[in-house]
Amino acid sequence: MTIDVIELAKNLINRESVTPHDAGCQKLMIDLLDEQGFEHEIMDFEDTQNFWAIRQGATEEPVFVFAGHTDVVPAGNLDDWHTPPFEATIKDGYLYGRGAADMKGSLAAMVAATERFVTDYPDHKGSIAYLITSDEEGPFINGTVRVVEELMKRNQRFDYSVVGEPSSTAVLGDVIKNGRRGSLTGFLKILGTQGHVAYPHLADNAIHKSYKALNALAEEHWDDGNEFFPPTSFQIAIENAGTATNVIPGEKYVEFNFRYSTESTADGLKKRVTDILDSFDLDYQLDWKLNGEPFLTPEGELLTAAKNAVRENCNIEAEALTSGGTSDGRFIAKTGAEVVEIGPVNKTIHKINECVKIDELKTLVDVYYSVLKHLLAKE
Amino acid sequence: MTIDVIELAKNLINRESVTPHDAGCQKLMIDLLDEQGFEHEIMDFEDTQNFWAIRQGATEEPVFVFAGHTDVVPAGNLDDWHTPPFEATIKDGYLYGRGAADMKGSLAAMVAATERFVTDYPDHKGSIAYLITSDEEGPFINGTVRVVEELMKRNQRFDYSVVGEPSSTAVLGDVIKNGRRGSLTGFLKILGTQGHVAYPHLADNAIHKSYKALNALAEEHWDDGNEFFPPTSFQIAIENAGTATNVIPGEKYVEFNFRYSTESTADGLKKRVTDILDSFDLDYQLDWKLNGEPFLTPEGELLTAAKNAVRENCNIEAEALTSGGTSDGRFIAKTGAEVVEIGPVNKTIHKINECVKIDELKTLVDVYYSVLKHLLAKE
Ligand SMILES: [Zn+2]
Ligand SMILES: [Zn+2]
Repeated sequence: MTIDVIELAKNLINRESVTPHDAGCQKLMIDLLDEQGFEHEIMDFEDTQNFWAIRQGATEEPVFVFAGHTDVVPAGNLDDWHTPPFEATIKDGYLYGRGAADMKGSLAAMVAATERFVTDYPDHKGSIAYLITSDEEGPFINGTVRVVEELMKRNQRFDYSVVGEPSSTAVLGDVIKNGRRGSLTGFLKILGTQGHVAYPHLADNAIHKSYKALNALAEEHWDDGNEFFPPTSFQIAIENAGTATNVIPGEKYVEFNFRYSTESTADGLKKRVTDILDSFDLDYQLDWKLNGEPFLTPEGELLTAAKNAVRENCNIEAEALTSGGTSDGRFIAKTGAEVVEIGPVNKTIHKINECVKIDELKTLVDVYYSVLKHLLAKE
Repeated sequence: MTIDVIELAKNLINRESVTPHDAGCQKLMIDLLDEQGFEHEIMDFEDTQNFWAIRQGATEEPVFVFAGHTDVVPAGNLDDWHTPPFEATIKDGYLYGRGAADMKGSLAAMVAATERFVTDYPDHKGSIAYLITSDEEGPFINGTVRVVEELMKRNQRFDYSVVGEPSSTAVLGDVIKNGRRGSLTGFLKILGTQGHVAYPHLADNAIHKSYKALNALAEEHWDDGNEFFPPTSFQIAIENAGTATNVIPGEKYVEFNFRYSTESTADGLKKRVTDILDSFDLDYQLDWKLNGEPFLTPEGELLTAAKNAVRENCNIEAEALTSGGTSDGRFIAKTGAEVVEIGPVNKTIHKINECVKIDELKTLVDVYYSVLKHLLAKE
């Protein structure tokens, strides 16, 4: 049999797998991979479904991993959709449905490309593996991060990983993500003394006290970035203080977020924030959440293979960028693997009428096939 | 008959007159005043009960007005009270109950003092009047302000007014309020452009933009105050911006409040705020609410009479202050009358276990009586 990428994508979209639900998507993939000689292992944690599948070729190494997620974000307001979000629909050359671009189209393309590759090169070098989770759009606690931890305990090797995130912006292949910035959030409470506005001498306004220090943070230059990363950016996202017009607030709550390059570290940024706050003699409480460390896959075998695959199949030169939010790629990068993200145009992801161009989804099969060929086809 | 101030205060407290309800308090007062030769007029507006009562002596002028409110703030958590808030209770020399100090005790003292005065001086000079509302603790829309407006239309004259607000701080008579600061609130929305923290170049953070301008407002010196007023104070009371850690906020909402002396005007302050904001090239929307204009009763017949009354009955020298929040006194001052506030110790007002010292409430009758005597007893 030959897998039809469009049919498989439709079958995946029709399963309403809103995070952390998988709704049978992984079973569909596993059955197809088993037929191609993969050995799979269910690795569920808590409410999250994950699987790991691997097919060894003529050698054990290198290990190439397709990574991705079967979960999708909620559909939002159903009335705003032109087609039912969980009934894949083809219209005017596009495949519509929640997850079409992020990332059930990519999952279908991976499986189709794998089938074609192992048929063409049954004795390929190394191993092909799949690491699939149902918790990428959610809190990423029980998904890729835990599977990777578990596999690293077993000394599973990772050499290359292609994540199916929708990396393209205008046309398929125009952007390959070869890294992501780090994301670090601070939860700050600035303390003063509450009082009545009629008696300001008895109070210490937490809002007034905050301005100079917060302005200093907002104006700080954190680093210059580098060849692959824009400079680290700092944004205060939330401020809340006060209850009534006649009450001087005794507390001000602030949340801020760093998107940081590999020129900074989470610990370094924390220290600099603390130093700035301390220089203003503030009374405060500060908690942190590290949402994701940055990762970077510099020029190397995987990035070269990915760029070549794009050039050969899309007739354009892919740009390697690290922009955008976090992705599960960072967890796989921790293994030491080279990691890139290649996937459909991301214009409609997480929006109503999410879609992928039929032609580009077919071409994505070719791109993935070419990557496999560049890295694993026996010379 | 002779009115027992404690009994009358208890009768008023037992009526659960939470703003804007009067619960029969005014009827109680009116019946007693009618017996003393007053002519009363019910002047209800919307949900608010008010009355005006006047007794002319040997002459029409001067017109002396007792002013106050029968409404009280809610009791709060009943479990925290040692005695039921709407069952007046005498314990250890204090009268407990919601409104005991603010200001049902004062109302009882006014009526008792009036009875004694008109008995002793039936042919007193001028007129004694009452202006009582059930909406002082509330939005002050349909209370004293409207009654005064109505009476001014009729060219009713006002010369002196004693408001029964609890002006004392440690012992009865230590403080007479001879004015109040103005209160002006600003509602400010600072505008930027919303975006995702991962793409800061596409956004314009409303929080970051706000700091320099708001800090300039917080640091501005508005005036020096004067003999009677502390310097104008400015407090930012509320800040709200942002919805999620990964969203750069496009708006920041701020509420601030001026308590201002007679050295500044509402219009002058508005202009200075606007000039400061404009100097930072901000995009903003700004609305204002003038909660109360300042008023001041300088040394004169009423203040002298009040100080003498305190000296004679309390054996202390009263300090004339303008501190604290707003009061209905400002509406009466607009008529051109001299206005002072004299009332019980305000330590427990608006709190649980509100109370007034029995001895001081009896002395308050003497103080009000002396004020009447100084101003209206026929030479
Ligand atoms: Zn995704
Ligand atoms: Zn009051």
